[in-house]
Amino acid sequence: MTAIGRLRYAMVGGGPGAFIGAVHRLAAEMDREFELVAGAFSSNADKSRQAGEELGLDLKRVYGSWEEMLEKEVGRPEDERIHAVSIVTPNHLHHGPAVAALKAGFHVICDKPMTISSELAEDMRATAEASGRVFALTHNYTGYPMVREAREIIQSGEIGEVRKVDAEYLQGWLAEDLESTGHKQADWRTDPAQSGPGGSLGDIGTHAFNLLEHVSGLKVKRLFGKVSTFVEGRRVDDDAMVLVEMNNGANGKVCCSQVCVGRENGLKMRIFGTQGGLEWDQEHPNDLTIWRQDGLRETRRTGNAYLAETSMSLGRIPPGHPEGYLEGFANIYRAFAAEIRGEAAIPNAFPTAKDGCRGVRFIEATLESSQASDWVDF
Amino acid sequence: MTAIGRLRYAMVGGGPGAFIGAVHRLAAEMDREFELVAGAFSSNADKSRQAGEELGLDLKRVYGSWEEMLEKEVGRPEDERIHAVSIVTPNHLHHGPAVAALKAGFHVICDKPMTISSELAEDMRATAEASGRVFALTHNYTGYPMVREAREIIQSGEIGEVRKVDAEYLQGWLAEDLESTGHKQADWRTDPAQSGPGGSLGDIGTHAFNLLEHVSGLKVKRLFGKVSTFVEGRRVDDDAMVLVEMNNGANGKVCCSQVCVGRENGLKMRIFGTQGGLEWDQEHPNDLTIWRQDGLRETRRTGNAYLAETSMSLGRIPPGHPEGYLEGFANIYRAFAAEIRGEAAIPNAFPTAKDGCRGVRFIEATLESSQASDWVDF
Amino acid sequence: MTAIGRLRYAMVGGGPGAFIGAVHRLAAEMDREFELVAGAFSSNADKSRQAGEELGLDLKRVYGSWEEMLEKEVGRPEDERIHAVSIVTPNHLHHGPAVAALKAGFHVICDKPMTISSELAEDMRATAEASGRVFALTHNYTGYPMVREAREIIQSGEIGEVRKVDAEYLQGWLAEDLESTGHKQADWRTDPAQSGPGGSLGDIGTHAFNLLEHVSGLKVKRLFGKVSTFVEGRRVDDDAMVLVEMNNGANGKVCCSQVCVGRENGLKMRIFGTQGGLEWDQEHPNDLTIWRQDGLRETRRTGNAYLAETSMSLGRIPPGHPEGYLEGFANIYRAFAAEIRGEAAIPNAFPTAKDGCRGVRFIEATLESSQASDWVDF
Amino acid sequence: MTAIGRLRYAMVGGGPGAFIGAVHRLAAEMDREFELVAGAFSSNADKSRQAGEELGLDLKRVYGSWEEMLEKEVGRPEDERIHAVSIVTPNHLHHGPAVAALKAGFHVICDKPMTISSELAEDMRATAEASGRVFALTHNYTGYPMVREAREIIQSGEIGEVRKVDAEYLQGWLAEDLESTGHKQADWRTDPAQSGPGGSLGDIGTHAFNLLEHVSGLKVKRLFGKVSTFVEGRRVDDDAMVLVEMNNGANGKVCCSQVCVGRENGLKMRIFGTQGGLEWDQEHPNDLTIWRQDGLRETRRTGNAYLAETSMSLGRIPPGHPEGYLEGFANIYRAFAAEIRGEAAIPNAFPTAKDGCRGVRFIEATLESSQASDWVDF
Repeated sequence: MTAIGRLRYAMVGGGPGAFIGAVHRLAAEMDREFELVAGAFSSNADKSRQAGEELGLDLKRVYGSWEEMLEKEVGRPEDERIHAVSIVTPNHLHHGPAVAALKAGFHVICDKPMTISSELAEDMRATAEASGRVFALTHNYTGYPMVREAREIIQSGEIGEVRKVDAEYLQGWLAEDLESTGHKQADWRTDPAQSGPGGSLGDIGTHAFNLLEHVSGLKVKRLFGKVSTFVEGRRVDDDAMVLVEMNNGANGKVCCSQVCVGRENGLKMRIFGTQGGLEWDQEHPNDLTIWRQDGLRETRRTGNAYLAETSMSLGRIPPGHPEGYLEGFANIYRAFAAEIRGEAAIPNAFPTAKDGCRGVRFIEATLESSQASDWVDF
Repeated sequence: MTAIGRLRYAMVGGGPGAFIGAVHRLAAEMDREFELVAGAFSSNADKSRQAGEELGLDLKRVYGSWEEMLEKEVGRPEDERIHAVSIVTPNHLHHGPAVAALKAGFHVICDKPMTISSELAEDMRATAEASGRVFALTHNYTGYPMVREAREIIQSGEIGEVRKVDAEYLQGWLAEDLESTGHKQADWRTDPAQSGPGGSLGDIGTHAFNLLEHVSGLKVKRLFGKVSTFVEGRRVDDDAMVLVEMNNGANGKVCCSQVCVGRENGLKMRIFGTQGGLEWDQEHPNDLTIWRQDGLRETRRTGNAYLAETSMSLGRIPPGHPEGYLEGFANIYRAFAAEIRGEAAIPNAFPTAKDGCRGVRFIEATLESSQASDWVDF
Repeated sequence: MTAIGRLRYAMVGGGPGAFIGAVHRLAAEMDREFELVAGAFSSNADKSRQAGEELGLDLKRVYGSWEEMLEKEVGRPEDERIHAVSIVTPNHLHHGPAVAALKAGFHVICDKPMTISSELAEDMRATAEASGRVFALTHNYTGYPMVREAREIIQSGEIGEVRKVDAEYLQGWLAEDLESTGHKQADWRTDPAQSGPGGSLGDIGTHAFNLLEHVSGLKVKRLFGKVSTFVEGRRVDDDAMVLVEMNNGANGKVCCSQVCVGRENGLKMRIFGTQGGLEWDQEHPNDLTIWRQDGLRETRRTGNAYLAETSMSLGRIPPGHPEGYLEGFANIYRAFAAEIRGEAAIPNAFPTAKDGCRGVRFIEATLESSQASDWVDF
Repeated sequence: MTAIGRLRYAMVGGGPGAFIGAVHRLAAEMDREFELVAGAFSSNADKSRQAGEELGLDLKRVYGSWEEMLEKEVGRPEDERIHAVSIVTPNHLHHGPAVAALKAGFHVICDKPMTISSELAEDMRATAEASGRVFALTHNYTGYPMVREAREIIQSGEIGEVRKVDAEYLQGWLAEDLESTGHKQADWRTDPAQSGPGGSLGDIGTHAFNLLEHVSGLKVKRLFGKVSTFVEGRRVDDDAMVLVEMNNGANGKVCCSQVCVGRENGLKMRIFGTQGGLEWDQEHPNDLTIWRQDGLRETRRTGNAYLAETSMSLGRIPPGHPEGYLEGFANIYRAFAAEIRGEAAIPNAFPTAKDGCRGVRFIEATLESSQASDWVDF
């Protein structure tokens, strides 16, 4: 850690009942890179204060709105002032605070999908670029050591030219009409006004899409989508199947579903090249299966000295000591911190606004294709 | 076994260098239901004789053509005459001997895909129906006990109404241009004159398609296909991705590929209903994974008393004693024998000419859809 | 197959209700090496005849006792006479027919454990050696291709000098007092008069012991055993834990149990050397896990060209087409046949009377050690 | 979190190059329960200061010895003073600071094994009891949610009366003579003056032993051990096999090894009762396999609502989001904090000095038994 010590950050969202806010806080603090010092945890001032109290914050820095928060924090002396803002609100509330925080001179780390339309996404990207501040998007699955290893393997040419790409993300928790029961997580995710046009597409499909482009180093060139809503009355998709063609001629698919009863958080990726293949499963994240050209199957595991240097650097403990979701998430925060400190060592260590724009475009293109029953260029 | 003892059968194809002929012989004899007594193992009379010798057959019943074989066998006394013909030739040589054998009064068991066009397929079906003889198609994967259990689970309503269906069949052995090297198995499979219009689609895609319809009890209503040939110069597809809609409103996909380096024989199936889900993997065929509505995961295993009666009847040995590909294949022969003997106890115990017609139509519809970039009704 | 064609064999035991007799018949006939022509399937002449009828045998060659069978078969003309006898009776009935058959000039293949005392075992071995006939013992698990591969890996020095050996065989089917319910398989296995002194030790412990010596190429030098009977009233052990020291200084253990509720047929083996390790699990027999010195984990699979030649020769079908228990068992019969024909190509392709003597000694030494609470030399 | 906010703690040990110190810090801070404010990170004052700087501590509270630290911290005002001391030194340096800290009125959390002799262990226990302070021992594996679930299952009677217990802990990192290469972790662990009499026994065997007693709710009554040193010149054991008899008549084994090449951190546990069984593997910690009495296999997974309330409380994120080693470790710290705050809700939520005494006795009894070649009472 450099002389400036822990970076101070504020959170927008993440109040009582939230899931991802708590995850961000655990991830941010795991490596002592960040320290939470302020927050607008809810648009309800009482709830925001309640969260701030539970977190042991100085209540003078707990705010009822992000607008107030930014205004007040900018005015603080430099050695108290926050360095960064973490945005963990529902999707429709990403653009506002992100753009304002960047313009106020703060670094921003934002949950995914970046926002609810390509227009807003491009605005966020332009703002981030103009600001000279760091913008990170928490497609957290790219933070797993073995996901990095997969990327390194492909970049090294070990499996040859990529031919087939495949990412799927299956969950079952929305197999029933949870949103009618007052379930907070289901509620906003199935409300287009808050989630944007995509349901499962935005919530998990963009993770799968991002993972595929990140690991393969390729870009989707066009796609054919088939989007479904299985639960009656639901206002957004809960299932999508997308055939994709990549910019090097590879093809494959990106599928997501939230109606696969019993499936927990089934994000899987497989990529095959002319000389080998690989497979990774988020539910067993410390294993990476490789098929060599001679057919022999290898399992590479987090923390072993035979990994690429970058992959090793994403592990904290010796092999066989499982690292999980929070550790992978924390790697994104660690990379965000390193970039802020000007110490970034690993290229593409965290997703950026550019990735965020592609993610939003993925949602839109898939819906458009499904509607038109035709391929759509990206 | 009934009074008539072992059933006598003849084989068409399966001469030197063949793979599937040997499998059929092992499967046919495993349960002592069938005895090989005659054959036209090759259109080359010398090779046919060589095969007959190696198999220890009476060489008077080893023929240089199936036409000769049928003619001579019909003329034999009833207590010597064959009961059935097993056809294990390349695809373009299924229709001829099958139709002739049925017309000659013999039962027929034929390798898949049934033939190379829907027109010929319908002719085979009509002939089989008119003949009163038994016609079986060796979509052998339906013979596995746990595939049967999956079907029983769905029929019992245990996982509710089916919403999502998914079958994939991935191999890697054709990732390179094997057909130019004189590799016999690759050679005919990549020659449209012998394999018919489908490459991977016919060789393995039809297995996946059949498995999905067999287990789900549903029918594909329409499909959208994307067919590829990755190996330069190859004359047929070596990869296909097919989105499907089922007759009950479920959707899903059927994918196959022979360019996934390192993948051996990766046939997998997943089906999710409103109240549960299941998964089966041919490479670990004695396990069937069930997700219950409460999210709990069960593994059911071949040979256990908790299985459905039909599933139990497809096992030969106690639980934990792995049964494999040959045993599953033999179950198709055993069911074929039972039907011939009039003893059939299990409904849908083997695929029929009707299934064969659907399989050929699947190949044609997928190619048509891929060409048109549009959904095609089935 | 050589000029003499299929070998003719007779079976002793394996009548109605038997398990292992049916397995032997399937295994013997799988590769068309053997043909069943005679049998004394039960000491009850009616039951023997019933079995012979069901098997479609010439009833003149179905006998009420093995003594009669041997006498009559010896008198048959050479081109009808049996070549071999397969003995599948309870353990106390191995020695009699085996010794008599060998003396009568027949080859013998016998189920395990070889017999019920070291004295009888040594007599069988001496008789076999003096007879010049082939004697094989069906420790069938050595017939799996990946078990062979494990042996080849160790012999090649790939994992260095062996330090640790471990075999365990866990079942659950005797967790309750089945023998009081008239369960035929439980009945004789828990009756010392029929099973010999060992219960789980004889039934499954000897398999684990044999597997360990076969694969490691080492011999147990001394052992410390702890034998238990968990089910009240049971007259033999149903659980045993045995620490072993090998003749090269390696150590490890051989454990077996039949009271592990839910475990089906859990035979596992692990061996670690100075430069690597390996693991094999009978319930997933086509996988062999290797740990290389650099820590990387490899999975080798049945049927792949990268295997040792001997391991490849034990597979029948391409990789990914699961081969199971019956195929592994059939490999023992195939090797037995090859030895009879004088064609044996693979060394140590089937267990012999020598192995059988060690197996019986393993039972005795373990019981002796457990009794004395002390190490016992082998 | 209660009014007193984060608990302040100091660390003894955990300076440059240490492994477990960093783990304790991550675990302590994960849930914002603890805040590191002081430390004697090394007996070398410069190294201690270096560690303190890297951790961003107030250097006035970074000490060159634990004696100085305790003296100074006791003198601080109550609202600054530490609440607890975390001891992460090599084994021979646990007793001193632990006893002194307890006597100074601080709560203590100490790495395992508790100390290097039963005499010292009993002294620590007596001191802890007399002090009225909380003493916790980081047998961290008991902190995994599915380990807790296993314990709950057994306590509920779901698998009946326990018959068989089995814990093993296999690593490979000491398969070679690392200690001669200056490897810091290997160095002190193989030096009896620092590690105490046990090598692998103390380092990992005690974890396996503790896990077994914790989950089964049983106590080892007597044991028979066989201890080995495979690496030439090594001064402590690197492998141990221990047969155990439990206080309810169950038996089983506890094995550990650090010479199993390629094995990372293979801690596994299996327990079988009269009506079921269970299995857990630390390298896939979110799965718990259950065998039901009917033979059906269930997999229970972290975070699901079907778990026992206590098991649920040990998870932080939804099912399918893997929780790992650090999260399990943090659960011990969280339980330690709850006890300090007087809020403890889960019984036996962390190992105590009593468990620590048993662990040390396990090492001694195993060595004694191996030496005597005889069973030793516990």
